[in-house]
Amino acid sequence: MLKKTEIASMPSDLIGSSPVRPDGVPKVTGMAQYGADYSLPGMLWAKILRSPHAHARIKSIDTSRARALKGVKAVMTGHDLPEQPFAYHGPERVQINFWHMTRNVMAREKALFAGHPVAAVAATTQAIAQEALELIDVQYEVLPHVIDVDEAMRDDAPVLFDDLFTRGIEPAPSKASNIARRSELAVGDIAAGFEQADEIVEMSFKTAPVHQGYIEPHAALARYGSDGQCEVWSSSQGHFFVRAYTAALVGLKQNDVVVHPAEIGGGFGGKTVVYLEPVALMLSRMSGYPVKVVMTREEVLIATGPTSGSSMRVKLGVTREGKIVAAEGEFKFQAGAFPGSPMLNGMMCALSVYEVPNARLVGYDVVSNRPKAVAYRAPGSPIAAFAVESVVDELARRLQIDPIELRLKNAVQAGSPTIWGPKHAHDGFRETLLALQQHPDYHKPLGPNQGRGLASGFWFNGGGESSATIHVSEDGSIALATGSMDVGGSRASMAMMAAETLGVPYESVRSTVADTASIGYNHVTGGSRVTYATGMAVIQACEKIIEDMRARAAMIWDVDPEAVVWEQGAARLADASAGAQEPLSLKDIAAKRAVTGGPIVAEIAVNAGGQAPGFTSQFCDVEVDPETGAVKILRFVAAQDVGRAIHRRYVEGQIEGGVVQGIGWALNETYVYNDRGQLENAGFLDYRVPVASDLPMIEALIVEVPNPNHPFGVKGAGEVNIVPVMAAVGNAIRGAAGVRMTELPMSPPAVLAALDEQAVHA
Amino acid sequence: MLKKTEIASMPSDLIGSSPVRPDGVPKVTGMAQYGADYSLPGMLWAKILRSPHAHARIKSIDTSRARALKGVKAVMTGHDLPEQPFAYHGPERVQINFWHMTRNVMAREKALFAGHPVAAVAATTQAIAQEALELIDVQYEVLPHVIDVDEAMRDDAPVLFDDLFTRGIEPAPSKASNIARRSELAVGDIAAGFEQADEIVEMSFKTAPVHQGYIEPHAALARYGSDGQCEVWSSSQGHFFVRAYTAALVGLKQNDVVVHPAEIGGGFGGKTVVYLEPVALMLSRMSGYPVKVVMTREEVLIATGPTSGSSMRVKLGVTREGKIVAAEGEFKFQAGAFPGSPMLNGMMCALSVYEVPNARLVGYDVVSNRPKAVAYRAPGSPIAAFAVESVVDELARRLQIDPIELRLKNAVQAGSPTIWGPKHAHDGFRETLLALQQHPDYHKPLGPNQGRGLASGFWFNGGGESSATIHVSEDGSIALATGSMDVGGSRASMAMMAAETLGVPYESVRSTVADTASIGYNHVTGGSRVTYATGMAVIQACEKIIEDMRARAAMIWDVDPEAVVWEQGAARLADASAGAQEPLSLKDIAAKRAVTGGPIVAEIAVNAGGQAPGFTSQFCDVEVDPETGAVKILRFVAAQDVGRAIHRRYVEGQIEGGVVQGIGWALNETYVYNDRGQLENAGFLDYRVPVASDLPMIEALIVEVPNPNHPFGVKGAGEVNIVPVMAAVGNAIRGAAGVRMTELPMSPPAVLAALDEQAVHA
Repeated sequence: MLKKTEIASMPSDLIGSSPVRPDGVPKVTGMAQYGADYSLPGMLWAKILRSPHAHARIKSIDTSRARALKGVKAVMTGHDLPEQPFAYHGPERVQINFWHMTRNVMAREKALFAGHPVAAVAATTQAIAQEALELIDVQYEVLPHVIDVDEAMRDDAPVLFDDLFTRGIEPAPSKASNIARRSELAVGDIAAGFEQADEIVEMSFKTAPVHQGYIEPHAALARYGSDGQCEVWSSSQGHFFVRAYTAALVGLKQNDVVVHPAEIGGGFGGKTVVYLEPVALMLSRMSGYPVKVVMTREEVLIATGPTSGSSMRVKLGVTREGKIVAAEGEFKFQAGAFPGSPMLNGMMCALSVYEVPNARLVGYDVVSNRPKAVAYRAPGSPIAAFAVESVVDELARRLQIDPIELRLKNAVQAGSPTIWGPKHAHDGFRETLLALQQHPDYHKPLGPNQGRGLASGFWFNGGGESSATIHVSEDGSIALATGSMDVGGSRASMAMMAAETLGVPYESVRSTVADTASIGYNHVTGGSRVTYATGMAVIQACEKIIEDMRARAAMIWDVDPEAVVWEQGAARLADASAGAQEPLSLKDIAAKRAVTGGPIVAEIAVNAGGQAPGFTSQFCDVEVDPETGAVKILRFVAAQDVGRAIHRRYVEGQIEGGVVQGIGWALNETYVYNDRGQLENAGFLDYRVPVASDLPMIEALIVEVPNPNHPFGVKGAGEVNIVPVMAAVGNAIRGAAGVRMTELPMSPPAVLAALDEQAVHA
Repeated sequence: MLKKTEIASMPSDLIGSSPVRPDGVPKVTGMAQYGADYSLPGMLWAKILRSPHAHARIKSIDTSRARALKGVKAVMTGHDLPEQPFAYHGPERVQINFWHMTRNVMAREKALFAGHPVAAVAATTQAIAQEALELIDVQYEVLPHVIDVDEAMRDDAPVLFDDLFTRGIEPAPSKASNIARRSELAVGDIAAGFEQADEIVEMSFKTAPVHQGYIEPHAALARYGSDGQCEVWSSSQGHFFVRAYTAALVGLKQNDVVVHPAEIGGGFGGKTVVYLEPVALMLSRMSGYPVKVVMTREEVLIATGPTSGSSMRVKLGVTREGKIVAAEGEFKFQAGAFPGSPMLNGMMCALSVYEVPNARLVGYDVVSNRPKAVAYRAPGSPIAAFAVESVVDELARRLQIDPIELRLKNAVQAGSPTIWGPKHAHDGFRETLLALQQHPDYHKPLGPNQGRGLASGFWFNGGGESSATIHVSEDGSIALATGSMDVGGSRASMAMMAAETLGVPYESVRSTVADTASIGYNHVTGGSRVTYATGMAVIQACEKIIEDMRARAAMIWDVDPEAVVWEQGAARLADASAGAQEPLSLKDIAAKRAVTGGPIVAEIAVNAGGQAPGFTSQFCDVEVDPETGAVKILRFVAAQDVGRAIHRRYVEGQIEGGVVQGIGWALNETYVYNDRGQLENAGFLDYRVPVASDLPMIEALIVEVPNPNHPFGVKGAGEVNIVPVMAAVGNAIRGAAGVRMTELPMSPPAVLAALDEQAVHA
């Protein structure tokens, strides 16, 4: 059997190439089935009634007129879902707070944001369901609301939960507030650290919450059997969490619910929660029919996502030689209507590309009257990076050191400390800086009003639980299944790793995603974990198949299995001189399946540790229009250590995609709330994600510092690419126009205002 | 770990009980999805043009007018499917003749029966597809045809294939005929045998071909990706053979095609072939859209199924004491339009309940201009049993021995010889006779025009290749999947065996059928193999889970896995005095899944030998109306050895179902062809399957002689129950009215004619 190290070091024409994607043709020909594309006979359509108020007590809901409408088969409110344990301020960290989750799915006591679901209708047509919504009479007591994170932290702010007492403070406060948690990370002695500093920069920042901006709205189809056997079809980043959450919220055992995977039109972290599935399933239970519900774009924008907005203060001290000696930071993250922002992630990532001997970071998780924050590509890290990398840039300017040089002086590598305890175990960061340093564009001269900005980023990358199966048919073709939703090309990368491990052509592997009834648990597709962890399960399943193939060949040849080796996709006698057997290919052996023991199967489950983090460094050139404040990005170069690229174009696509989303976050995207707390730009015409004409050439530099824990050296590639983008753009604007933008988005009016203020002070 | 024998001998409240069926509620609430219930966005409908002629050369097919019709997206003929290797009279036995199969799916050179597909259309609506069929211009050269098996064997019969030379004859004939094969089975010396006989009975019989009569017509939905990635949804008895056949006929690798299981509305052997799937997939390929095709009832009756009709002659010799000493038989089986009747099966089963020292059976597989014969419940055996068991009944009358006594004198048991070589390995037959002998109804007096008939039957039962997976969720609920289509309750029996093996409640197991991409190969659901073979895979998968559970418990307790036993669904320390650990239930351990190694999975594949045959003995009481010839069945008692019943009501249902189908075959079902070879009773009004009011109380006597090769003693229960029914009814008519019916169906006109003839000769 092949050893891991043998595989990793084996030259390969396949690994790192870009074969045809299994999802390519179905997507471009329209045959791919997304969440909304599933239908069942007798199916009803559901629509959801949402609160128009940002903050209101629900005094009563009268659904009788809606129920009486012809064609309406069921009407539900939040109280139709079973109550969940109140795990709000328990002593231990509660990973999943179902008491919150059920109220996020549908409000009970209070509506906490404009768009919060308060009731739902299932009817024979969409039009009837819509009409029925208007017949539901909800009596609200409208309360004062708060949107902004700094305002939400004020003593006199309207409080969302009367019983929310900040955790992480000793002694616990006796007064309820919107601060759900205070966290602190510290190392060394910051007072002593700042004493050593020759230059200190301290700045405050604000970032806007931005939506994940996936093209495909949420959709779910559910069928509740009256014997409790249920099925759900939905688009998500993980049908196993859909199963777990939906079962818990509806009050079922996990295996009562079979969740089928659907093609996904983008998720970026935003499809790691349930909104519609429990509603559709409960309406199916109440009506006795299958129920389908599809969000409009407006619903997506008012009631799903986004990532947190923030308010931050960062202070860094550096010696004349460029060694960072002290860091202090305050990170206030919006959680939205329920606790749980990526504040801690943000703090952990904030300084993680640098060796900082003395640091103290304090964070706050703050609720306010907007949709509950959800994961978005390296959640937390880009927010913190905007602050830290802007300050580092300012330090480089003060010291007149090239920003790459400054970073190289402080760059982490294997053995460097982290602020959260264990040491870094992997290299890769320096290599991204060196890749940019060697790039000719980094040294190109700039024109008037042009500037170049550089920034770096860190992301953990994930491992964890995954399962994979390999089944070999008698014609030698191979079925590969995993339980990992294919968000970013995993069907392709899994097939490539399987083909490479088995020594068979890529084309002979059919790569699919199995439903929750047919394969072992797979953790969510997120955290850049799938190519690493699910890939590990795939490779191990292939190794098990090889072991089986050797045993079958040994049976056919009547020799000991140890005498058989597997090379280039065929069983061979280890000692070629021992016999004159022709090699038996996988196809040869598969054809004799029945007489050598029956079906050829392998299922492997892993809880993969040994993952390695993602590092990236990026620079961009911008030109600022002094008349309008408009920022044009001229070029963008992103170097990222991915360990090893399996499917090269997919990895490039991940890098390009992260940069594009970062550019939107940097320059345009924001939520515009009116004074009643209602979103005024709930559509893609007004919520401006970048389109092709907004974008420069993006060059993805794939850096490969292999992860020794993975047979092919994989680290993960999906997220870190977004981390430094806003800082890189901000730093470039600083270079182009002399203004330091500290608030996102850096839209034309904001830049123009900064230019005007600069002119006033000049 | 539990030993097999421990499980089998363990008293169980579950095994043999009748818990709620997983398919019950979905079926009665209409939520179950059968083949025709699947749809896809953008789907086209297909219709099939069929030959009106029983035998005709296809001179040309002009599809241009059909193609020009608005809404038509593709038109295909047989030549659009790739040609298959001509494996017609190769030297070796060809198990699957794809050259025939592709022509059965769609005619090429010749239409061989009225109803033979000659072209197909895919269009945006069913109406347009139907209209387009009428625009296809097929030029036929009509040829003489032959329907009956005896006529088809005549020298001057119209010959279906110019190059069909009978196999099994040395030297091979030089003249083509309709006799595809001659087979012979022999043991001992029949001349010497008949010498010893005191009584000899020789009779000739004819049986009608009958349709499997499933309620659900064939249906298929297929999607051909332009990258060759295909999906098929259809109702069948095995999605793995659908995949294999469809891939071969369309020219794809097996794993290019993912076949999804559907609920099945009856198959009985008739859904072990493909008719529509290759047509739908090819039309999808040609059109670029998903294509759905659903047969009408008329299409089902003119072009699918049935089992063979036959013409037989059987001669048995018996001593005065009742020992059968010699047997001779001739079995001419209709194959329909292509070779391949269950003639050899029929001959193997014919004498298999008796020890017959001298026997010679000759069989013929004969083509004629009717639909290709397909498997039907114990294929071949009921046909042969009608002849043999009628003759045995006649012998009992001659000898004036009770028919049970006569059979007991000759009954096979473990160690008895078979006509095909190996000895019988299992008991069970005598026990079915004894069960009837002890039944009070067997001794009840009869009224005027009433008679009692008894007959016995044999079926091999199957083993073979199956795969199963078990996945345990963190809440302790269990997903069980197999690749065996659930035709007769296997989801229930699998869940019961899993729950019993694991020691958990039945309700905690969710039992499903996985698609072909998600599980290892499972052979077709047929041959009464699933409860045995797939059950073996399920039990072994559970044993693997138990092993895993013990290892995880050992990890939690920090002890050696060998110190842990699994009892009553929990891990316990083997030596209770060694420590004071509370038992860890499956649920306890599942909750710690992530920290004890990750997902809990097991996939097991088996090629199960060790199956045991099914034996049955049955009697029925009938009353013959001398005025009309109508036969009323008064009661029916069927004793069947099933080894061990897992789900009791399902087993009873199998027995009742087999008897009902046998009653239809005995009394009513037949194909009425006009002189042009067209079926005139292609509908359930005219093709008379029994309805509830036709049926007596059927009493299923479950006999349990455990199969020692299976942990629970399972043998299989699905098929043998149909084997003796026609003979039992015929024997009862003989008792009631004194006439020996030798032709099926024994319909009122036929019985009346026999009564009339008896009166003439009286």
